[in-house]
Amino acid sequence: MRLRNVKNKQDILSNSTLLITDLKDLKGNWKTIFNNDNPIYIEIGMGKGDFILENALTYPNINFIGIEKYDSIVARAIQKIEGRDDIPSNLKLLRMDAKVIDEVFSKEVDRIYLNFSDPWPKNRHSERRLTSKTFLDKYEKIFKNDNEIIMKTDNTNLFEYSLVTLSTNGYHFDKVSLDLHNSDVESNIMTEYEKKFVEKNIKINYLVAIKKVSNK
Amino acid sequence: MRLRNVKNKQDILSNSTLLITDLKDLKGNWKTIFNNDNPIYIEIGMGKGDFILENALTYPNINFIGIEKYDSIVARAIQKIEGRDDIPSNLKLLRMDAKVIDEVFSKEVDRIYLNFSDPWPKNRHSERRLTSKTFLDKYEKIFKNDNEIIMKTDNTNLFEYSLVTLSTNGYHFDKVSLDLHNSDVESNIMTEYEKKFVEKNIKINYLVAIKKVSNK
Repeated sequence: MRLRNVKNKQDILSNSTLLITDLKDLKGNWKTIFNNDNPIYIEIGMGKGDFILENALTYPNINFIGIEKYDSIVARAIQKIEGRDDIPSNLKLLRMDAKVIDEVFSKEVDRIYLNFSDPWPKNRHSERRLTSKTFLDKYEKIFKNDNEIIMKTDNTNLFEYSLVTLSTNGYHFDKVSLDLHNSDVESNIMTEYEKKFVEKNIKINYLVAIKKVSNK
Repeated sequence: MRLRNVKNKQDILSNSTLLITDLKDLKGNWKTIFNNDNPIYIEIGMGKGDFILENALTYPNINFIGIEKYDSIVARAIQKIEGRDDIPSNLKLLRMDAKVIDEVFSKEVDRIYLNFSDPWPKNRHSERRLTSKTFLDKYEKIFKNDNEIIMKTDNTNLFEYSLVTLSTNGYHFDKVSLDLHNSDVESNIMTEYEKKFVEKNIKINYLVAIKKVSNK
């Protein structure tokens, strides 16, 4: 995600009703934020939030949390979503580094979306990839029952790497597509990146990875 | 593999020293064929045999068995290999349908190669694919210790399908490449098909799937 500075980003962040900033006592208690027991789906690296917003609007009985590291990008997502008439109540945002995800959630997440994550192409940075064993071990602590990770990427190397790390860490694949937009996958909600890639005829890789409680 | 009739194929088959035709009492006793305890690697669908021959010449301490369904293709492979001065003693051929593979081997195979297998594109034929659960269940009975399947294919749908069936049946992937000839995979021995695909810049998908004894 390209970083373009948003001047009044701190104001936007502090005045937002979407953004959860008080993380104290939140771990294990996310259902109190939504006031219901609906499933919780999170997107790590939500960018400007098109994907998570569209999901929240489409699936009102699921709670969505968009996570993003950079202030400026979160500010953009807030501006975009809070500028709407119909702000969905099943959507919240978090500005944080995914490294601390297991300090913020505990056994309460049902699905993780990883969309066009940073590929960290150099081998010495491989542990920073969001499907490295380092991250998979953190996710292990935040999933409620079965683990479910849905991934989209245009980056072939990241996709190959993820097929190896996920399967090696006990996941199997319910679905794999090497060309999502020419596949039988239905009801795909696109990210900002994805729309641009599709215009340029760049193929999108897609997987649904599951790890059953019985395999943990 | 295109079928071009070989006129004297029955003669070629009956006079071959490479081809194993007496399958009686062979199951569980393949080491008596090779007179040693070396690992056994098999290729299901060897075509004209370039891949399995080159492997046998390169790795003399491994026993290779090329399996092919069609008489004419087996006859071609025999002609090609028996026309050489140096016929490797660690190579044998089998003319048979892979459907009966578990009637011919028992707990004695170390690796299976699946190269450019028939994709059987129609859903109603999916059980005929060599990575369907039907076949994976047969392979389960013929592997000695850990299962190891190495697959190459230009067919995207067959590759996507195989990533799902293999992972769902307890395999993980040690390596995946969506473009074998632009990857870090070393010492790749090419099949006849593969040489043509590479000339045409068609990408080859590749995977190494492992199922550990402890996961059986």
